[in-house]
Amino acid sequence: MAGIDALLYKKRFGGELTREEIHEFVTGVTEKRFADYQISAMLMAIAINGMSESETVDLTMEMASSGDMLDLSGISGVKVDKHSTGGVGDTTSLVLAPLVACCGVKVAKMSGRGLGFTGGTLDKLEAIPGFSVSMDTERFMRSVDRMGLAIIGQTASLAPCDKVLYALRDVTATVDVMPLIVSSILSKKIASGADVIVLDVKVGSGAMMKTVEDARRLAKAMVSIGSRTGRRFAALLTDMNQPLGRYVGNALEVEEALDILAGRTEGDLKQVALRLGAQMLRLSGAVETADEGVRLLESKIASGEGLAKFAEMIENQGGDPKVVYDTSLLPKAEKRLELTAERDGFLTHISTNLVGYAAKALGAGRERKEDAIDPAVGLIMNKRLGDRVQKGESLVTLHTGAISDVETAKKYLTDALTVSDEAVNAPPLVYEEIE
Amino acid sequence: MAGIDALLYKKRFGGELTREEIHEFVTGVTEKRFADYQISAMLMAIAINGMSESETVDLTMEMASSGDMLDLSGISGVKVDKHSTGGVGDTTSLVLAPLVACCGVKVAKMSGRGLGFTGGTLDKLEAIPGFSVSMDTERFMRSVDRMGLAIIGQTASLAPCDKVLYALRDVTATVDVMPLIVSSILSKKIASGADVIVLDVKVGSGAMMKTVEDARRLAKAMVSIGSRTGRRFAALLTDMNQPLGRYVGNALEVEEALDILAGRTEGDLKQVALRLGAQMLRLSGAVETADEGVRLLESKIASGEGLAKFAEMIENQGGDPKVVYDTSLLPKAEKRLELTAERDGFLTHISTNLVGYAAKALGAGRERKEDAIDPAVGLIMNKRLGDRVQKGESLVTLHTGAISDVETAKKYLTDALTVSDEAVNAPPLVYEEIE
Repeated sequence: MAGIDALLYKKRFGGELTREEIHEFVTGVTEKRFADYQISAMLMAIAINGMSESETVDLTMEMASSGDMLDLSGISGVKVDKHSTGGVGDTTSLVLAPLVACCGVKVAKMSGRGLGFTGGTLDKLEAIPGFSVSMDTERFMRSVDRMGLAIIGQTASLAPCDKVLYALRDVTATVDVMPLIVSSILSKKIASGADVIVLDVKVGSGAMMKTVEDARRLAKAMVSIGSRTGRRFAALLTDMNQPLGRYVGNALEVEEALDILAGRTEGDLKQVALRLGAQMLRLSGAVETADEGVRLLESKIASGEGLAKFAEMIENQGGDPKVVYDTSLLPKAEKRLELTAERDGFLTHISTNLVGYAAKALGAGRERKEDAIDPAVGLIMNKRLGDRVQKGESLVTLHTGAISDVETAKKYLTDALTVSDEAVNAPPLVYEEIE
Repeated sequence: MAGIDALLYKKRFGGELTREEIHEFVTGVTEKRFADYQISAMLMAIAINGMSESETVDLTMEMASSGDMLDLSGISGVKVDKHSTGGVGDTTSLVLAPLVACCGVKVAKMSGRGLGFTGGTLDKLEAIPGFSVSMDTERFMRSVDRMGLAIIGQTASLAPCDKVLYALRDVTATVDVMPLIVSSILSKKIASGADVIVLDVKVGSGAMMKTVEDARRLAKAMVSIGSRTGRRFAALLTDMNQPLGRYVGNALEVEEALDILAGRTEGDLKQVALRLGAQMLRLSGAVETADEGVRLLESKIASGEGLAKFAEMIENQGGDPKVVYDTSLLPKAEKRLELTAERDGFLTHISTNLVGYAAKALGAGRERKEDAIDPAVGLIMNKRLGDRVQKGESLVTLHTGAISDVETAKKYLTDALTVSDEAVNAPPLVYEEIE
């Protein structure tokens, strides 16, 4: 059995680690046999010298099996899951999960409590009065089997190696390292047990990947490596040069998802959610083509089945199902405030990151695990890229509360939005489908 | 002021750190603002992406000034110091320091308490009954000024940054990294205040550098970088394919040094010590050429001044000066044991590392700081490379004591020594002089 020293030397000089060596590394990390300073030296060596596809597959599988591996075989049908690399106003899960479940495909979704601009899926669901994201594995599986849908928090015993690596990457300048990103994302998805996993890789000013090339590289790596683990994978490259939905915040994003499911709202969020859901249906064999998938999902909106399925899930998880028919039951912010345009022109650029920081300043997201969030606060983007704006017209409506730092949020938003003379085209919504 | 994250990113992508950035790194390490896992990530990034000569100069100077900087300007004349990269039977300091001091050059030597095969210079001196290596800086300087010579232990406040880095390098596979070796060695020498520093870079089976090419690279880097710090530097590449002296152990090495100073013993240890000492004299301006220096030092042996100077230093540091005229006053091992040749032939190879391990097994060196050593134990190499040996003849005489693991030592020695049919030439003693 190789010690950490031999592994560090090998990777320092660009060697390819064997499956056994990666097993030794992952178990050493998980069992705390290796010190943080040794692990971080390995992370830096990987950051600089890279990992082959074969090493990344091995790392992914070893990380997945570093903790509990969910066995969903007791649930009938194809089990699907998704992962988004994260963005602002990125509420696709709440839209697509009920719709996909209506098509006979089982959505068994475990989400992490991500740190970010706004809360993750869990925080959004918890904005629904009474909703609980805790459920034991037994009940989770019975729920998915019976009604096709449950969304709960990841258990602490899911890919524990990733928790250690992620915390160290965050403080050693090794977050943006392809094999580490890939293995971190995929290991948790594989341990969660789904057969089909659809990846939403964001591109643009609000995404980790700023260019289509980088995003394509990540998506291809994830699909290629994921496919070697015995699951079916596909990825979409989607735009994050502006918030995907118009609403940014926890209760606000639930409201927009409900508006879409109710057929009241069109727009980019809906389009991306349906395209992702269609991939789930296609990979599950429920439809032949993605276009057919989109049409099927549209029909579940039109029939009201999607909204009813959402209500069923809310009820099953302790929440008030009436919210789906009456969004006024969702938490509402104390105050509203308009950020207006200072000149005529076109909205030509959005620093989406800064919009995210603004939402966080208002109290919609967390910096640290222990930070409080306010489910009611957030903001509504009244203009999209390429829109014509007039001086004095509202660009953003801020929904503020007691913990909001309104001045900071306004400063971020002012810096985030550029109004210029020249008209620009809106960016494409989906750049590529990769499988 | 850059945070550690920015520094890590820059070095991860191969950037060259500025003096300000290196200052930030060194002060962050020294003041414990950076975590061990961040420092080790930087060490690995440096290991892989290297450092320019200019970065290494900056790192050296910043590490030197991370703690106390000795000001020796109160001592008249040129102050000299030396450093050896370490080997077995490597007792040059005890030979050259008194001789150089006899030539009017001031030897102000601070030694570290190195871990290694045998004790460092401090452990050897402490084998002399009563000798103390502790002395406050005031008295150290007065001693050097008055009698030309003092050898004491480094204070804890000398280059404290190096202590942190060295401990982490040891456990993160980053010991053998050129800019880190160079800055570690030079920073302590520069903080110690000497004007002239002579480096003894060992090459061979008992050295960190196994080839002349590697040793030359290290020596050139140290001399080049050292010379940019305002001090005068030179280096010799010397052989470590066998123990330099015949005696290996603490009291034993003092005995061999005294034998040389008394003119009773010739050999490789004497030759290397005089060559190093000659460089000190030349760089100090006491002689024109190294050859002239060797002749001057030889004359101090012949006149007995060197031995008298050693006695003077011993007395000044609390030891019994009579040992220089009567080596039977040094600690003696309880038992002696011969390791004999199993066949006729020539001594063709010595794994000098293993000879060092054997000495350590006998109790002459430390694995950890807290390990006990026995000043009396060690071994005498009765044959040198190329010597003819006869079956049954003694190759090594072991000097053993209560803490000796004799079986392990014998096993190491048996593995270390190769007797073959073909005659070989002894390796060169000094490969190169670099300045």
